[in-house]
Amino acid sequence: MVEALIFDVFGTCVDWRSSVAREVARTLPEVDAIAFAEAWRAEYDPAMARIREGARGYVPLGDLHLENLHRVADDFGVTVSDPVGLNAAWEKLDPWPDVVGGLERLRAHAIIAPCSNGSIALMTRLARYAGLPWDCILGAEIAGDYKPKRGVYLASCHALRLEPDKVMMVAAHNDDLRAAQDAGLQTAFIPRPTEYGPAQRKDVEPTGDWTVVAQGFDMLAERLGC
Amino acid sequence: MVEALIFDVFGTCVDWRSSVAREVARTLPEVDAIAFAEAWRAEYDPAMARIREGARGYVPLGDLHLENLHRVADDFGVTVSDPVGLNAAWEKLDPWPDVVGGLERLRAHAIIAPCSNGSIALMTRLARYAGLPWDCILGAEIAGDYKPKRGVYLASCHALRLEPDKVMMVAAHNDDLRAAQDAGLQTAFIPRPTEYGPAQRKDVEPTGDWTVVAQGFDMLAERLGC
Repeated sequence: MVEALIFDVFGTCVDWRSSVAREVARTLPEVDAIAFAEAWRAEYDPAMARIREGARGYVPLGDLHLENLHRVADDFGVTVSDPVGLNAAWEKLDPWPDVVGGLERLRAHAIIAPCSNGSIALMTRLARYAGLPWDCILGAEIAGDYKPKRGVYLASCHALRLEPDKVMMVAAHNDDLRAAQDAGLQTAFIPRPTEYGPAQRKDVEPTGDWTVVAQGFDMLAERLGC
Repeated sequence: MVEALIFDVFGTCVDWRSSVAREVARTLPEVDAIAFAEAWRAEYDPAMARIREGARGYVPLGDLHLENLHRVADDFGVTVSDPVGLNAAWEKLDPWPDVVGGLERLRAHAIIAPCSNGSIALMTRLARYAGLPWDCILGAEIAGDYKPKRGVYLASCHALRLEPDKVMMVAAHNDDLRAAQDAGLQTAFIPRPTEYGPAQRKDVEPTGDWTVVAQGFDMLAERLGC
């Protein structure tokens, strides 16, 4: 058994797509809410890329989300009267049905923490909304960089004073697990085949030699003997 | 009501003196366990002082505790066969009786987090042992410095993306609250008059103009309308 499990959050623990769309629909009834949520999310990786490459210093994800919201609203030709309020949609994401119960089981045996690109503030508020029983918040902010940069995984292990092979990265994304495995961590792939909607093509199956593949967090707990 | 409460931990939330003495008694039956625990704790502030003054880079508190253990064992003329094991005494500290219930009440209304000089690893393991239901772990490690340096309080507020006046520092130590108040935070004094044993003289009463003074975390919750 590992001593800690660290988790990707957006997509792996929570359904960002329908949750953000719900908040968009409430605020901007005139747009296609799912399309808006997807377009907003599509700005995520390019915004982090500049920071990973060193072209920009570390900026918390909430700030990037807000910058991206202005860009997406322009593209959709709408005005957001309370952008900070709508930006908080990312703090109100519903967990997949297996997540909270699975985390409780896992937590009885190992430290559990997010290793997300979300900031401490964002992960804290999201955990309160979604009932995610984390022991602490790790991830991008304590590393001052963004996944899949190696240093983010290593900073999370270091913060727990654990060697990487005592820590398991749990994610629905093969790229995330590839980087974690390269950094020496154990890996668990939990497919979320509808994260991007019914037509999702990527990450529907494991593409690497991961330590565990499980359909949901309950099965992960089972496999780890929790 | 404030949006977050951040807590001193050693002394304010947990009874380090009798808890560490219990572990010392188990490992070193030949010494006066209370005297050993007190001597170990007495090395705490001088060890941090060098880091606060910039004479040494940030080192997590667990490492300082381990260095100090060697020094105290020498002073007591004993050999510790498993110093790392005994050092984990600081992860097994019992909460004062009002703490867990009071934190649960407070947490229903505001973010709660430690703002301790303990590291993320130490605070995480201690929270699991003592059942402290933190939303996240703030404090020395995210600031790379030690209280009562102003930057530690401000880094904790910044990590939550809150202005200092929306955050309340809760402590049994007037010096800690003085520094937090100087940094713009609200303050709550919770006396723990036996933290240092029955002969304690310091911090038995508030010596500043704190926002709240309460006998225990339940009364604090009451005062804050939780």
